Amino acid sequence: MSQFPFQVTHEDSETQARTGLLETPHGAIETPIFMPVGTAGTVKGIKPRELEEMEAQIILGNTYHLFLRPGHELVQEAGGLHRFVGWNRPMLTDSGGFQVFSHGERCKISEAGVEFRSHLDGSKKWLGPEESMQVQNALGADIIMAFDECAALPAPREKIRNAMDRTTRWLERCIKAHKRDDQALFGIVQGGIEVDLREEHLEQLVQFDLPGYALGGLSVGEAPEDMYRVVHAIAPKMPTHKPRYLMGVGRPIDLVHCVAGGIDMFDCVMPSRNARNAFLFTREAPIKIRNAQYKNDWLPIDPTCTCYTCQNFSRAYLRHLFVSKEMLGAILASHHNLHFYLNLMKEVREAIRSGSFGTWYKEYVAHYEAHNS
Amino acid sequence: MSQFPFQVTHEDSETQARTGLLETPHGAIETPIFMPVGTAGTVKGIKPRELEEMEAQIILGNTYHLFLRPGHELVQEAGGLHRFVGWNRPMLTDSGGFQVFSHGERCKISEAGVEFRSHLDGSKKWLGPEESMQVQNALGADIIMAFDECAALPAPREKIRNAMDRTTRWLERCIKAHKRDDQALFGIVQGGIEVDLREEHLEQLVQFDLPGYALGGLSVGEAPEDMYRVVHAIAPKMPTHKPRYLMGVGRPIDLVHCVAGGIDMFDCVMPSRNARNAFLFTREAPIKIRNAQYKNDWLPIDPTCTCYTCQNFSRAYLRHLFVSKEMLGAILASHHNLHFYLNLMKEVREAIRSGSFGTWYKEYVAHYEAHNS
Repeated sequence: MSQFPFQVTHEDSETQARTGLLETPHGAIETPIFMPVGTAGTVKGIKPRELEEMEAQIILGNTYHLFLRPGHELVQEAGGLHRFVGWNRPMLTDSGGFQVFSHGERCKISEAGVEFRSHLDGSKKWLGPEESMQVQNALGADIIMAFDECAALPAPREKIRNAMDRTTRWLERCIKAHKRDDQALFGIVQGGIEVDLREEHLEQLVQFDLPGYALGGLSVGEAPEDMYRVVHAIAPKMPTHKPRYLMGVGRPIDLVHCVAGGIDMFDCVMPSRNARNAFLFTREAPIKIRNAQYKNDWLPIDPTCTCYTCQNFSRAYLRHLFVSKEMLGAILASHHNLHFYLNLMKEVREAIRSGSFGTWYKEYVAHYEAHNS
Repeated sequence: MSQFPFQVTHEDSETQARTGLLETPHGAIETPIFMPVGTAGTVKGIKPRELEEMEAQIILGNTYHLFLRPGHELVQEAGGLHRFVGWNRPMLTDSGGFQVFSHGERCKISEAGVEFRSHLDGSKKWLGPEESMQVQNALGADIIMAFDECAALPAPREKIRNAMDRTTRWLERCIKAHKRDDQALFGIVQGGIEVDLREEHLEQLVQFDLPGYALGGLSVGEAPEDMYRVVHAIAPKMPTHKPRYLMGVGRPIDLVHCVAGGIDMFDCVMPSRNARNAFLFTREAPIKIRNAQYKNDWLPIDPTCTCYTCQNFSRAYLRHLFVSKEMLGAILASHHNLHFYLNLMKEVREAIRSGSFGTWYKEYVAHYEAHNS
């Protein structure tokens, strides 16, 4: 664990926001950070050098997808995921647990693990804590995630508690199965949107003194206010000197609210998936670029944006590309949306460092509400 | 025409190959040159800055596609095609004639022009010499093409001669309708694969003293040897001090044979279209990257290639991207194939300049035949 020192560099005086520096074998990560998702070994439509250009510090890979195709053995033969995909900065892989439930077919969950059918060819597969570690060890990301059970919400407290307790037992098995000390294993706190259950599970997990902790099972359909409530209640109780990762979140406004609650790391497919659906983020309201109103709109997507897309192309051209089903539309839109997210987090870090985050946060939320109501 | 001086800079002593410099309002073009095709205002999957990186000097736009969508009026409102698509180097648009026949539906051709149905929505459209010039003047490319009739081959000599004669009459109307002296209008020589008809048509067209001449109606299904025979017979008779453009050609070996025949300019969708179909060019045989043999092949596509794709990614990774239907597969493959074509022409220019093209040409053809038989 000495390979993954995490230092809190600034703490905001008005909120729980903080900046930090997490060291990994592939370089340091400045937090708070947004991590672009590269599901099957590629951030869709974006070359690695473009991720570097937009100052992505760390990207994700999905264990479920890579396990099914091309298979972790092949990635290992390539020299690991970094080498395979041509990305030399830090990477994180999820455990496959969440994705088995969301993508896999006919899942049978037991204390041992999960039997499921591949969504690719229907073949029978198995992932448990040991297999998840084995796959993630082969992939070789800097940060790997414990194999957890996430109860679908809403659920009775008893069901949520059962998933929590199983997640804890599975974590013990993950720790035993994890074989590489150049990979940091993060634990995942479950507990639905019940603050007391979340606290209970957090207490169970901190006993293991892991290099980082995540909040799982949020942004799965609950109201944003419920998520904010849980995050603002739980994040400050997570270990101060360990990175805090909120999995699968979210919209720009969600990131900002949860940074204020004390979160350090985020990931979400939203910027890239929405881009492919012609939904573009701006500092005001999002733009649905296929709409006829942009037919002869010669402004860039966001006139305040410094990304390659906004510096070179008009909304009218982007609309033309989307209407014509040209690949370049999704490419330029993905570039913009990812830059937008990464730049937002950069602005957040600068505000925290300069001691102005409290004010910045209030203004951001007021501006957001004025343009998105 | 003074805006488009063309200077022959080197002539090969053993073949008809030559290097030249064509000046345009958006910069000079070194010939022989391959021009990537940007059908609907984008070279599919490639950002303009990447075309600059691979030293593309000039790209094409298709009048037929841009006329139908987004419409030339919109492109004109954008400030022209260069501004609309974010490309500041030279551009060329075709006349729309060939594409009306190949894409349009229910074409009715008459002396006045062509009535057709849009392949997008079935609406009735019209393009004749005057309309083609009007559209191309609005698009504003540096080089524009005369509206021609290309007889489908094989065809009786009488039909080919009728198309030639009509093309000449249409050229006169194009010259009258063309309104911008910052755009060079090239004429198109027809005549099928009959050398005497080609000579006859060329004689008709050189009377107009245009800034450049193209060979149209080749690479439309005839045997490569027939095309080479026509090109080697006709290109040397085309005006020496005007650029010679062979439209829609072709494979790398075709480009090399036709440079040796005296051609200066080429365009073809092959590098980008084949890339999207997982067909990758190399200096040896082409690679069909989806094939299982590349599953754990850790070499780049072409170990001698200096492109971004070959410098960073393995065949195994590219195969994974194609098998997984990831957009990045088509993007990286298109990047490689276009770089391959552009680099081949750079090598050709250097061989001509250094006086070694004769030897280079023999070796290239021998190497090609050894790997593609």
